[in-house]
Amino acid sequence: MEKKKKVSETVIRRLPKYHRYLTDLMEEGEDRISSQELSELTGFTASQIRQDLNNFGGFGQQGYGYKVSTLREEIEKILGIDVTYKAIVVGAGNLGSVISHYKGFRDSGFDIVAIFDKNDEVVGTKVGELEVKHVKKLERYLEKHPDITVGILTVPKDGAQEIADRLAAAGIKGIWNFAPLDLSAGEGVIVENVRLVDSLLTLSYYLTDSER
Amino acid sequence: MEKKKKVSETVIRRLPKYHRYLTDLMEEGEDRISSQELSELTGFTASQIRQDLNNFGGFGQQGYGYKVSTLREEIEKILGIDVTYKAIVVGAGNLGSVISHYKGFRDSGFDIVAIFDKNDEVVGTKVGELEVKHVKKLERYLEKHPDITVGILTVPKDGAQEIADRLAAAGIKGIWNFAPLDLSAGEGVIVENVRLVDSLLTLSYYLTDSER
Repeated sequence: MEKKKKVSETVIRRLPKYHRYLTDLMEEGEDRISSQELSELTGFTASQIRQDLNNFGGFGQQGYGYKVSTLREEIEKILGIDVTYKAIVVGAGNLGSVISHYKGFRDSGFDIVAIFDKNDEVVGTKVGELEVKHVKKLERYLEKHPDITVGILTVPKDGAQEIADRLAAAGIKGIWNFAPLDLSAGEGVIVENVRLVDSLLTLSYYLTDSER
Repeated sequence: MEKKKKVSETVIRRLPKYHRYLTDLMEEGEDRISSQELSELTGFTASQIRQDLNNFGGFGQQGYGYKVSTLREEIEKILGIDVTYKAIVVGAGNLGSVISHYKGFRDSGFDIVAIFDKNDEVVGTKVGELEVKHVKKLERYLEKHPDITVGILTVPKDGAQEIADRLAAAGIKGIWNFAPLDLSAGEGVIVENVRLVDSLLTLSYYLTDSER
């Protein structure tokens, strides 16, 4: 397969949105959509949309727009939704439990196979179908299950970097981080941060600004 | 007070990160920091940082850098962290429960005072200190408590737009939306979306791309 050129992160972050709208359109029975119509739905300009999709080879036909199901499938391939990644959760608190239960993650191609915590009172309890394991067993578990590639971090800020280092050393390729700090992971480890507090502070800014 | 010029969303979204690093620096007892040192911490360029802060009046002194505590305080004012917003949660499922318990939200200036759900089996149960109310009482409750300005939406996708419309009609000024759709709220209502699945799909893209 031909090596594709590097696509900017801004474009990548728009793809899930395209995928969301295309899924809605498919459910509504739509067959084709023009970049103009996609523009009205997504709020991106039509030329932006054409440019975004051209990064991956286009998929549209001049004057005919895009076939909804085909475009959706292509975006699924680009995003790797068709690949299943095995994941573990570290941190069996409330958030870890939410993540473990959430159907949307399985639909996105992630399969959570184990959950760890350092708290002896939590170890051995059940989160959904999974029994919480002690975090000291992390390395041994990952060694036995080399097909696990993703670690989901739902621990407090203070222990987060240490756990990230241990995950990286144990061969984890991607970390989905909910701890409120900027993790440094080694070469070749992809970190995706979810910044709930940053999002809330953005809302706070706009609320405060509207009163200024 | 002089009306300030509109600052771009990209700049606004960097402010919580500055705030996070300045809080760390203060806890470490640092007194002053140069834009160069801030650059090494945050990954933004020094000139970017100076430009960002100049949007709000600067705060730095040529050759002396920034006073950590003062800069942090100024950013808190800009972000409105010093203002407390009363909020309600709609959707008392796992995620709603996590949000209601999370200390970080109170620290960010949000005070969750009530939680609603449509499920009769959940209504009347406790989430932390709060007793879950039926969502049919939403309007009456908000009318009695006009000081509530924020609605946190942790309902499934299907009911989300209807709830958002009801919140807006009842005078809510800001919606923090966890439902996986692009809400349209009326004029004057600020919507901040948290897109967990979009974030996960971005991770999926980079994992898949690293294997291509």
